[in-house]
Amino acid sequence: MGYLLTPGPVEVPTFVMEAISRPVIHHRSAAFREFYSNIRNGLQYLFQTDGFTGTIIGSGTFGVEAAIYSLFRPHNRIAIVDNGKFSRRWVNYGSLRDLEIIHLVAEWGEAITKEEILEGIHHMPTLKGIVLTHCETSTGAVIDLEEIALAIRNVYPDILIVVDGITTVGAIPFYADEWQIDCAIVASQKALMNPTGTCAFHLSERAIRHLAPTHNSDFINLYNYYEPGLSNEYPYTAPTQLLYGIEAVLDHFRQTGLPAIWNEVHHAASTFRKGIERLGGKLMASNPSDSLTAFQFPEHDNEAIRQMLMRDFDFHLAGGQGPFRGKIMRASHMAGVTAETMEILLEKLALCLNQ
Amino acid sequence: MGYLLTPGPVEVPTFVMEAISRPVIHHRSAAFREFYSNIRNGLQYLFQTDGFTGTIIGSGTFGVEAAIYSLFRPHNRIAIVDNGKFSRRWVNYGSLRDLEIIHLVAEWGEAITKEEILEGIHHMPTLKGIVLTHCETSTGAVIDLEEIALAIRNVYPDILIVVDGITTVGAIPFYADEWQIDCAIVASQKALMNPTGTCAFHLSERAIRHLAPTHNSDFINLYNYYEPGLSNEYPYTAPTQLLYGIEAVLDHFRQTGLPAIWNEVHHAASTFRKGIERLGGKLMASNPSDSLTAFQFPEHDNEAIRQMLMRDFDFHLAGGQGPFRGKIMRASHMAGVTAETMEILLEKLALCLNQ
Repeated sequence: MGYLLTPGPVEVPTFVMEAISRPVIHHRSAAFREFYSNIRNGLQYLFQTDGFTGTIIGSGTFGVEAAIYSLFRPHNRIAIVDNGKFSRRWVNYGSLRDLEIIHLVAEWGEAITKEEILEGIHHMPTLKGIVLTHCETSTGAVIDLEEIALAIRNVYPDILIVVDGITTVGAIPFYADEWQIDCAIVASQKALMNPTGTCAFHLSERAIRHLAPTHNSDFINLYNYYEPGLSNEYPYTAPTQLLYGIEAVLDHFRQTGLPAIWNEVHHAASTFRKGIERLGGKLMASNPSDSLTAFQFPEHDNEAIRQMLMRDFDFHLAGGQGPFRGKIMRASHMAGVTAETMEILLEKLALCLNQ
Repeated sequence: MGYLLTPGPVEVPTFVMEAISRPVIHHRSAAFREFYSNIRNGLQYLFQTDGFTGTIIGSGTFGVEAAIYSLFRPHNRIAIVDNGKFSRRWVNYGSLRDLEIIHLVAEWGEAITKEEILEGIHHMPTLKGIVLTHCETSTGAVIDLEEIALAIRNVYPDILIVVDGITTVGAIPFYADEWQIDCAIVASQKALMNPTGTCAFHLSERAIRHLAPTHNSDFINLYNYYEPGLSNEYPYTAPTQLLYGIEAVLDHFRQTGLPAIWNEVHHAASTFRKGIERLGGKLMASNPSDSLTAFQFPEHDNEAIRQMLMRDFDFHLAGGQGPFRGKIMRASHMAGVTAETMEILLEKLALCLNQ
């Protein structure tokens, strides 16, 4: 029996697949509104917010594009951290939207610091917002979001802080209200242990004030999700079966408690990191996230090892992206993966290294 | 045991739910590309085209918005038929995109004719395209697409003919290449008997020439689906589980043959229409589609009957939209509904009428 340990998609547990297979209901019905209300409450717990929450059909990328598209206007001055494949994509979306972008560049694998960010946005009275990637999935580097967000807020009380929480929310501590985050995005196929196809977001009061009813694209405008969402309606045909799966995992999180979930992820991650160093491997991130580990064995053909793991042991890890293509492996610790599974993976890795 | 007979979402058969529950695979793998290639071939059969086919995460509305957004440019002159809730929405999307729109207005329930369309677009050398709604789901009215599309093509050899086939493709005859349609959209939760959450499209060579790599939104740009789609890649995280369901039904269509599927829909629809007239009911569409029937009992409170059907017999029909809100009912004949089920529904309707 193999394991899918890519940092999204992850294995989907049986209770989630069973929820997804429930009978179809109409998305314009009282039954839908009741169930969507439960999801929205579960998302408030997930993001740790009293603000607005909602879901979107689409990948996490669509969620971040929608946030950038909906919260900023052409020629707004926005700072975007740029230190990996995904954060680079957000820079690209800012350009498509004709934003004036302040690049906060760090090396791939480096987690940008509070000091670097504050220096990069020093004395910018017209700054409208900042887009932070909590964990850069291409390198596994995590920033100290609490420290960074509060420091930015201290200097710029009114700007919008937008966070790509795609591989962090539900995996590691995340407190939207306490950290004064205005909008964060999470995707279904990561810590939410669901199939691909949906993402979720929250909006602070400040963010809601920046929404506007008309833009030149409709489906991507978060305003359209906000207005009907207040009465637990979905603006378009809702992805109901996928949302059943999201509801199941949010109920699970509330029953188990997020700290226990975060702790399980941390335990799997630290077990794995220690094992990699024991085997002579190198971690790619200066500040590795618990949600995934990007690593390499410097003297080996890492892509060959990754293929061998798949072929001989049915363990599926992700490879590298961008400059890391073919050079690293990435293993997920999200979605209920145990430290025991990590130990088994480490054994298989040891076998591959000795071939 | 009840029936969900709304014109989307429809009941999802067990073989589709089983496909959706298959183990997760990574969307960047040879296994995915092989399976996506099978879907793309199945879509060629569905649309009856040798052109490009693809899928999008999103509702049918997103699909049509993406087509309008991707195929036309601001200030292009476009004709849009406007005779119901959904065709009105396409007019709205054309406005958001700053198109110069020629409204081809017909009454709700009327199927616009070839003559009316040709008159509405008479002598317009700068016309770039036309958006046709094959069946307007809010009224059940179907246009004679073959006749209309070929007549338009005869006058305007180079314009793009875009078709909302959301409640027709897979339910009634549709021949993209033979009718020289450049782009059509279908949604998963209609004749494709799948859960909500995805839509599919085809593009002619002529349509492909109008795609462009950059616009100010990325996820909605069909160009991004076209380029990787040529090698059976999905541009973003793919909705893999939902696509398994789409594959299952496309395989089913190829095995059964579309004419047999269309015939089953036609048989259910004509059984139902005859029964409604026998009960003293009135069809809302001058030219009713086989995919759904919009009807009313003029002397009755139609919304009360619809509620009673739901409460007492667990038969779920849709109500009216726009000016028809509260005044009509709409029943689907798509997705494997049999004439026998229609007979049972007619019996229940008779009971409601006599209360």
